[in-house]
Amino acid sequence: MSTNATSAEPVRLYGYWRSTAAWRVRLALGLKGLAWQYCPVHLLRDGGEQRQPEFLRLNPQGLVPALAIDGRVLTQSLAIIEYLEETRPQPALLPRDPAGRARVRSLAQLVASDLHPLNNLRVLQYLGGPLQLGEEQRNAWYRHWVATGLAALEARLAGEPDTGRFCHGNAPGLADCCLVPQLYNARRYDCRLDDFPTLLRIESACLALDAFAASSPERQPDAGPAR
Amino acid sequence: MSTNATSAEPVRLYGYWRSTAAWRVRLALGLKGLAWQYCPVHLLRDGGEQRQPEFLRLNPQGLVPALAIDGRVLTQSLAIIEYLEETRPQPALLPRDPAGRARVRSLAQLVASDLHPLNNLRVLQYLGGPLQLGEEQRNAWYRHWVATGLAALEARLAGEPDTGRFCHGNAPGLADCCLVPQLYNARRYDCRLDDFPTLLRIESACLALDAFAASSPERQPDAGPAR
Repeated sequence: MSTNATSAEPVRLYGYWRSTAAWRVRLALGLKGLAWQYCPVHLLRDGGEQRQPEFLRLNPQGLVPALAIDGRVLTQSLAIIEYLEETRPQPALLPRDPAGRARVRSLAQLVASDLHPLNNLRVLQYLGGPLQLGEEQRNAWYRHWVATGLAALEARLAGEPDTGRFCHGNAPGLADCCLVPQLYNARRYDCRLDDFPTLLRIESACLALDAFAASSPERQPDAGPAR
Repeated sequence: MSTNATSAEPVRLYGYWRSTAAWRVRLALGLKGLAWQYCPVHLLRDGGEQRQPEFLRLNPQGLVPALAIDGRVLTQSLAIIEYLEETRPQPALLPRDPAGRARVRSLAQLVASDLHPLNNLRVLQYLGGPLQLGEEQRNAWYRHWVATGLAALEARLAGEPDTGRFCHGNAPGLADCCLVPQLYNARRYDCRLDDFPTLLRIESACLALDAFAASSPERQPDAGPAR
């Protein structure tokens, strides 16, 4: 497949330090050893910079991340990472065999499609705004979907023989890029993680790697005070 | 990549007639001209057959679809379709160039990650159960996320030059497999669609194809009465 991966234009990541989806892309860029510029989009300032015309020109959906690369702007974290995988294949974030690729993608989508979207900022804003739910109910909502999603992920990772030191085998990949930010979010909302020993074991293996440590929200230039 | 696509074991799709995610997989199977057996999982009977031990052995996440193929069980609709694409490449549901593939995947994920999960059955059950929201508030929730998601999709499809007769060019693909079921769902909840002429135009082009017509919920063996 053709690629202009050698373009002189720097790779620019539009993100927010605490955006889980942007963090996945930071991880993929880091694991692949790519250089990139960070363009912070403050999700809470002025009603959300992601909803301003300037950003909507980059991504009409008004969500981070967006990645400017090879002369175009890409959106949706998993689509971005698949693009990086196709144009910068080494080190690989997906296994080579179709069954393994399906497994890793399904683990990633369990987080990215079935867990994270329910606890996204805009959803919490809707629960507290139009639906007028109090903090206790919003937290219960948050923890319910974390518990449901992580229990399913634990069941799969604990029970499937392809799980290794990481989600799939002994090298970090796409599923790990989804898992680690999700566990960080779970802790922010004081979710119990005792029932997920496999997830915590894999997280520890990830955090021992430079690419994971460097990608943490607190180490981003736009990091604010902890909650 | 290796494949045992010629396996004599029939392909089995575990789904529910009105599951949007299962419908995406039906569409992909149909567009690729693959034979498959349908194994209905009734999402509302007996507290949900997807939560029974028999199904949880197939998919610990307790969600449809699951696809038994080539001696294994795959989950997550988009991961399943990517597997079909890699093992049964013709006709292609993704373009060949990485930029086009990223575009199609991002359109698919806009629906599958940012729109549909918020309006899934289990979410509506949580809104009505633990959160005790009435039908009016649940419908408002549903329509809010449909309107938000489809507006973003319309903006992209109307504004991007790669849009053709279908979401990407002039052949149906992965993004169309996500769009058509989502529009069906929107109509079930009486969502206004007047502002989405590009989506409706592409939907018409899709529904003129046998694979789309044959995949509709009402034509599945487990179809129940209309709401």
